[in-house]
Amino acid sequence: MVPQGERPELQSVRTAVVGASGYSGQELLQYLARHPVFHLCIVTSRQNAGQPLSQSIHGLPRELGALTFVDATPDFNLAEKADLFFLAVPHGTAAPYAVALREDGKTVVDLSADFRTSDPAIYQEFYDHEHPAPALLGEAVYGIPEIHRARLKLAKLIAAPGCFPTSIILPLVPFVKHVEADSIVVTSLTGVSGAGRKLELRLLFGEINDNMYAYGVPKHRHLGEIEQELSLAAGKKITITFVPHLVPIHRGMITTIVAQLAKSLTDGDAYHILQKAYGQEPFVEVLPPTQLPEARSVTHSNRIQISARVDTRTNRLLLFSSLDNLGKGNASQAIQAANLAFGLDERTGLA
Amino acid sequence: MVPQGERPELQSVRTAVVGASGYSGQELLQYLARHPVFHLCIVTSRQNAGQPLSQSIHGLPRELGALTFVDATPDFNLAEKADLFFLAVPHGTAAPYAVALREDGKTVVDLSADFRTSDPAIYQEFYDHEHPAPALLGEAVYGIPEIHRARLKLAKLIAAPGCFPTSIILPLVPFVKHVEADSIVVTSLTGVSGAGRKLELRLLFGEINDNMYAYGVPKHRHLGEIEQELSLAAGKKITITFVPHLVPIHRGMITTIVAQLAKSLTDGDAYHILQKAYGQEPFVEVLPPTQLPEARSVTHSNRIQISARVDTRTNRLLLFSSLDNLGKGNASQAIQAANLAFGLDERTGLA
Amino acid sequence: MVPQGERPELQSVRTAVVGASGYSGQELLQYLARHPVFHLCIVTSRQNAGQPLSQSIHGLPRELGALTFVDATPDFNLAEKADLFFLAVPHGTAAPYAVALREDGKTVVDLSADFRTSDPAIYQEFYDHEHPAPALLGEAVYGIPEIHRARLKLAKLIAAPGCFPTSIILPLVPFVKHVEADSIVVTSLTGVSGAGRKLELRLLFGEINDNMYAYGVPKHRHLGEIEQELSLAAGKKITITFVPHLVPIHRGMITTIVAQLAKSLTDGDAYHILQKAYGQEPFVEVLPPTQLPEARSVTHSNRIQISARVDTRTNRLLLFSSLDNLGKGNASQAIQAANLAFGLDERTGLA
Amino acid sequence: MVPQGERPELQSVRTAVVGASGYSGQELLQYLARHPVFHLCIVTSRQNAGQPLSQSIHGLPRELGALTFVDATPDFNLAEKADLFFLAVPHGTAAPYAVALREDGKTVVDLSADFRTSDPAIYQEFYDHEHPAPALLGEAVYGIPEIHRARLKLAKLIAAPGCFPTSIILPLVPFVKHVEADSIVVTSLTGVSGAGRKLELRLLFGEINDNMYAYGVPKHRHLGEIEQELSLAAGKKITITFVPHLVPIHRGMITTIVAQLAKSLTDGDAYHILQKAYGQEPFVEVLPPTQLPEARSVTHSNRIQISARVDTRTNRLLLFSSLDNLGKGNASQAIQAANLAFGLDERTGLA
Repeated sequence: MVPQGERPELQSVRTAVVGASGYSGQELLQYLARHPVFHLCIVTSRQNAGQPLSQSIHGLPRELGALTFVDATPDFNLAEKADLFFLAVPHGTAAPYAVALREDGKTVVDLSADFRTSDPAIYQEFYDHEHPAPALLGEAVYGIPEIHRARLKLAKLIAAPGCFPTSIILPLVPFVKHVEADSIVVTSLTGVSGAGRKLELRLLFGEINDNMYAYGVPKHRHLGEIEQELSLAAGKKITITFVPHLVPIHRGMITTIVAQLAKSLTDGDAYHILQKAYGQEPFVEVLPPTQLPEARSVTHSNRIQISARVDTRTNRLLLFSSLDNLGKGNASQAIQAANLAFGLDERTGLA
Repeated sequence: MVPQGERPELQSVRTAVVGASGYSGQELLQYLARHPVFHLCIVTSRQNAGQPLSQSIHGLPRELGALTFVDATPDFNLAEKADLFFLAVPHGTAAPYAVALREDGKTVVDLSADFRTSDPAIYQEFYDHEHPAPALLGEAVYGIPEIHRARLKLAKLIAAPGCFPTSIILPLVPFVKHVEADSIVVTSLTGVSGAGRKLELRLLFGEINDNMYAYGVPKHRHLGEIEQELSLAAGKKITITFVPHLVPIHRGMITTIVAQLAKSLTDGDAYHILQKAYGQEPFVEVLPPTQLPEARSVTHSNRIQISARVDTRTNRLLLFSSLDNLGKGNASQAIQAANLAFGLDERTGLA
Repeated sequence: MVPQGERPELQSVRTAVVGASGYSGQELLQYLARHPVFHLCIVTSRQNAGQPLSQSIHGLPRELGALTFVDATPDFNLAEKADLFFLAVPHGTAAPYAVALREDGKTVVDLSADFRTSDPAIYQEFYDHEHPAPALLGEAVYGIPEIHRARLKLAKLIAAPGCFPTSIILPLVPFVKHVEADSIVVTSLTGVSGAGRKLELRLLFGEINDNMYAYGVPKHRHLGEIEQELSLAAGKKITITFVPHLVPIHRGMITTIVAQLAKSLTDGDAYHILQKAYGQEPFVEVLPPTQLPEARSVTHSNRIQISARVDTRTNRLLLFSSLDNLGKGNASQAIQAANLAFGLDERTGLA
Repeated sequence: MVPQGERPELQSVRTAVVGASGYSGQELLQYLARHPVFHLCIVTSRQNAGQPLSQSIHGLPRELGALTFVDATPDFNLAEKADLFFLAVPHGTAAPYAVALREDGKTVVDLSADFRTSDPAIYQEFYDHEHPAPALLGEAVYGIPEIHRARLKLAKLIAAPGCFPTSIILPLVPFVKHVEADSIVVTSLTGVSGAGRKLELRLLFGEINDNMYAYGVPKHRHLGEIEQELSLAAGKKITITFVPHLVPIHRGMITTIVAQLAKSLTDGDAYHILQKAYGQEPFVEVLPPTQLPEARSVTHSNRIQISARVDTRTNRLLLFSSLDNLGKGNASQAIQAANLAFGLDERTGLA
């Protein structure tokens, strides 16, 4: 299912990362440093402006390490400098960049939440302010390649999803018609990097080491995009319960989904459904029912592990997934989607 | 609700810990070293036999540190040496000790699973062999003081519960009649010490650090005792879905419970129900709905934190708890129960 | 060597903690909550002002948990409110409090660096500004009870030492006349809590987990007090090399000291010297030469472990220590010293 | 300084890993899976025999994942199956493999200690038994490419060094003639993976998390090879003091070296000496004096960071290094050395 060769091969795409001092931005740099087509030429960071990349990011090739962070002030004409832009800035901050860059015809991959929900009312419900650029919502494509591959090949504005949605949507989509729509309960365990690289007391080592807790209930911000994608796949409105937990790990996310089966399935049936959906996908590892996903198996990769198990005592389906919340849940999946938008093999730079 | 002064005060109870090389046994020693009535006089451990306690357990008072571990061979007449026995040996191994000690009229607190389910058929279903001492099941009392206080005051054989059951039963019991009995989904995150101090590859630092995963699905061994206690409280058979997860933390356990409400409750109603059930309990900390339990707040203590929240989007109740899986989930709760059995203030040695 | 009964026993000392939002302040509260004589009546914290203590500090007795943090503005007459003051604020900030409180005759235990060096020139050399209250330096007593017990019994101003100095001075003092004075090389590994609870990027979980590094070379701020105390014990000027390292642990500190022996010693000789110096000390655990200190054995305690070993290949002495950098290296040692100043058994509230 | 093109390019070298169930073996597989010339064709592991590689090692290309572990029983003719053999078995076990494979003319890279010291007496001194194959010691080349590049290009038996030696030898060699030979004191902090993947209580998560300690003093086994290499570089016998510490991290090692300067150097001089020695090396990152190596900057890489600082108060040189104890300290350096032995660019498969 890996498309390739559809356009004459691109030699090089001038690429920019906007906002590269956070964990997402740094992860993008790690992947882009090895990408054979997307050539980094602009990296912005207010915090690190003027410094060479090598000071914050170790192990870069020398020529890339010598590139300096720039501060993208308004008079700095970003759009002229590159053709592909990854936005790794907070939601609300991303939209104005996207508007300006799209006016100049540039391709934009936004890692914030600004373009993930197609309905601006949902954005307002979950982010407590009006959508900053509703006119662009129509052209944004939700960036999970395994679900929206065809549309991503034509996309100029990609809304790269968050880590929770990816870890929930991919396992659930093949089963949304097999389970009771109103019975879905989701628990996720997330590494701390998902909260970003921010100066907050709760993110100190001393507050997280030897600690863990649930948070963000009952209405976490990512529910908007999660329920949008599940409803789309089910053909009807789906509302779920979602409880995220913070655990003392830097990167990684595992998700456990429990739902009432509409009619009985065996472990074998469930495995078969997953295999049919994802057996040919290069970045989805379908595990047999007796093997459960674990965090470290996918760290520093663009892979997601998924497995399914039936609880015959209660006739419930149990789904499990594991991904790197900075990888398949963030930076590397954004590159996978951008590969499609530029007609490349989607594995380019990710293997 | 803390009973005291019901019998003339005991000066001293000769106390033994059987099997003190594991994490449970070591934790018992830490608590018993400071207990004003239960005086440690025998500590058995095949592995450490002949060594002074001070070599494995630091910070003990000198006279206690000088006590040596003994190997309780069959001809070593354990029963003569003490009046209160804590069994911290694996299930299956504990039962023969309990039989012999009960024959001699001794009080036994068993931290294994051997006497937790009153029906030997349930034991067999979950532990895959016949119950080793079914005749004793009738006199065993399940050791959660907040639920079985009256019976524990008369108990001679206490079945101290596991950490998962304590973290699930205490939050759920006040609500079992408020939720749909067949809708309960439980997720727990456990520290590694819950698995014991065993030579297994999966327990190496290198296998757990930076890692996490679900396990033990769909039918974890502790479901037998959990469903027994919930059914008892509900007055009808309750079957739940339970998914434990291992996280890179040594001690601590947080549990998240999701259940469909039979009729609507507000956050305030739920808080009131918890307050009514546990407001006077010395070791239960009921948190307001906006505050969620966290692991470190109860580490090295006999306390459990509980809070409740209503998800109005789905009319579900969310319950949260946190305890130390070696404390309220294990050793210190065993001492709390033993305090009751000896007519002491149940806080003795635990404050 | 534990003095007691020297004055009529005190029923209660009104006690204040100034600056209780950091890790030192919180640790003081944990110990003081259980202290039978020092009764907490004032706790200041700008950050938490108005909140009950129970909101930040879990497991406090109810009456103490209900006490609220106050903001000690200038018109808040602190001195009237208590008789013993623990200052847990940054260096430079502590001195003005000490001046005002000493004018009112109050006893002050300062956990900052403001009164640790008796010579204001040394303060200026290491802290880059003039000493804020040189007139008080004369009456300050350096707060290591095992070294300055006699003076501490008369002290009104105690300069509680830092964690590095305690971990270095205690093992070295008995040997300063056995080693070449100019040959001492010290390495320490410190838990993150030593850096305090500050909003700095380098203290985020994501920056410390899976990471470690040396820092603060070649002239760490604590060298001033360390060399002062070693020189005092040696009767001549001692200058050392000191390299601290940060490791991914919250609390704990281990120190390794290497020095050229002036004449040969055996392992047995070295052990005997330590036993003679500290064998009767309640909080010093002298280990045999074959056993090396470890962090967890002293966590959450006021104990320090020390052992000595001779490297016969190079005729060097190796000294090892372990302490809790919030315990014997900070809060609990400050209480030990205050116990002496109030004529109490120095173990009061610390056992 | 990277040699290449000296022989006609090799298409493919049949490669075997002997003993792939430990951390070294697994790390070798991760690197070899991406190596363009060394093609894995045999992987032995008694423990995993019969299983596909994909079951233990995640993220392998499918064809490689399908390869199964074999048990290399005596009648299994290993030598026929490959031309390059990496031995990742314990010391003592490796030598017989090496003898047999060298008889058949195969190239052997031994990751154990069996061929690291050229004098069998030193082996016996540190490993407490006679050397198992002294006749082979003459042809073994110590596998640090930056020190022994010329000899490695001709090597058929490579003794890949341990992690401690690499982290100590590389920083020290350029300075051995600048410091007093008898003044060297070395402290290392090592991640747990350095101890291997063994069933030992001390390696459990519960024993290492929140813990740290010095060990292996005063005569750690690796001193033999360290002093051999330092003495070789200095042209005279060098004896050092070495104190390793275990810290709660899986992979990573930082080393701090302190030595008396024979005559004064500035920070700038020391930096210049490092630059001259390693400025052109692809895997050595010389940091400026104000920047100290940290563990995470080199994790999952073949790089070592080094910096130097002068302590002018004591006229001592401080050297710092950081490497991944499974990377430059183990598996990837073994591949770097093997690249040289096969006439490849030494960066092949490591960039």
